Amino acid sequence: MAALKPTNYHGEVVWLGRVMQEGGLTSQPTEALDFTFDGPVGELHGGRTRPSCSRVTDQHPKGTEIANVRQISILSAEELAETAFAMGIPEIAPEWIGASIVLRGLPDLTHIPPSSRLQTETGLTLVVDMENRPCVLPGQVIAQQYPDKGARYKPAAQGRRGVTAWVERPGRLVIGDTLRLHIPDQRPWELIKDVRG
Amino acid sequence: MAALKPTNYHGEVVWLGRVMQEGGLTSQPTEALDFTFDGPVGELHGGRTRPSCSRVTDQHPKGTEIANVRQISILSAEELAETAFAMGIPEIAPEWIGASIVLRGLPDLTHIPPSSRLQTETGLTLVVDMENRPCVLPGQVIAQQYPDKGARYKPAAQGRRGVTAWVERPGRLVIGDTLRLHIPDQRPWELIKDVRG
Repeated sequence: MAALKPTNYHGEVVWLGRVMQEGGLTSQPTEALDFTFDGPVGELHGGRTRPSCSRVTDQHPKGTEIANVRQISILSAEELAETAFAMGIPEIAPEWIGASIVLRGLPDLTHIPPSSRLQTETGLTLVVDMENRPCVLPGQVIAQQYPDKGARYKPAAQGRRGVTAWVERPGRLVIGDTLRLHIPDQRPWELIKDVRG
Repeated sequence: MAALKPTNYHGEVVWLGRVMQEGGLTSQPTEALDFTFDGPVGELHGGRTRPSCSRVTDQHPKGTEIANVRQISILSAEELAETAFAMGIPEIAPEWIGASIVLRGLPDLTHIPPSSRLQTETGLTLVVDMENRPCVLPGQVIAQQYPDKGARYKPAAQGRRGVTAWVERPGRLVIGDTLRLHIPDQRPWELIKDVRG
């Protein structure tokens, strides 16, 4: 009967951080994050609702109060390394792009199915909304380290920017923890090729 | 940049209802529903959180407080008719199976992509969690009308039980309104065939 199916794919938490500066993009590294239904404690992007941003202007006038499905930014260590390689720089520090969680070992993280869950052994559960899409702003932060390379960020991060998520079940996350992937066990929508072209 | 893409697929609202009786499965028809972030006003399945049920025991011990992504049960009029046909009965009334919203004209509704949004022109926005899976309970209600046919419900409703959803942006819904489908515009996860077999 269950539509949500556990898989044998896991990601190991190798980095955690919080955006703590009003108006800032960058996050501050931490060893542990506590999650309530509002998101990570102390995270500026927390809250059950948020004012809608420019990413969803096809759906809402900017500033509309909507449910917050962007409490958490999850990225893949491997995809981050690929993005840095594509930019021609040695690395991208997760804090430069405002990451909350960086996982190692979960292949093709940016494209895990929308409405997937990521769950720890102790029960913390995050709902994946969908792919995050890169914008130009992280490039400006990267340009502080590599002045000529900032503009390369947005194209290099296509398909590698991770996912956004929100809290289904509160709990604690510590570096070294493992998140298990659970996916919606359903066939593709029949019209999907018609819509995606 | 946007990952959430409007489509030209729409569903017309042909029926609305609320489950109002404690412990009951059936819903009461109504001409209009008002939605807050808690779900439809007066709906027993409302609330921002809920005690987890037997559908998610692979993720949570029964009764765990989790975010409520099952505020709303959305079904397709066409799929309901197909289910009735497969059961050998003339019709299934939406109230027998606890429906909140019945839509006409949105093909393959049960399999629209998880994390899709359904939105009215005035802005009410519902987030689709995923496919709903049929259980045996509606068959017991149907058996009150068609005594020998109740057990046929669960197999007949496979792939036709609609989706569950929750409120991203509050608003009002009236019979005759149109909901537009917005889908996550991303390619399938590379490992999906490995997991689904």
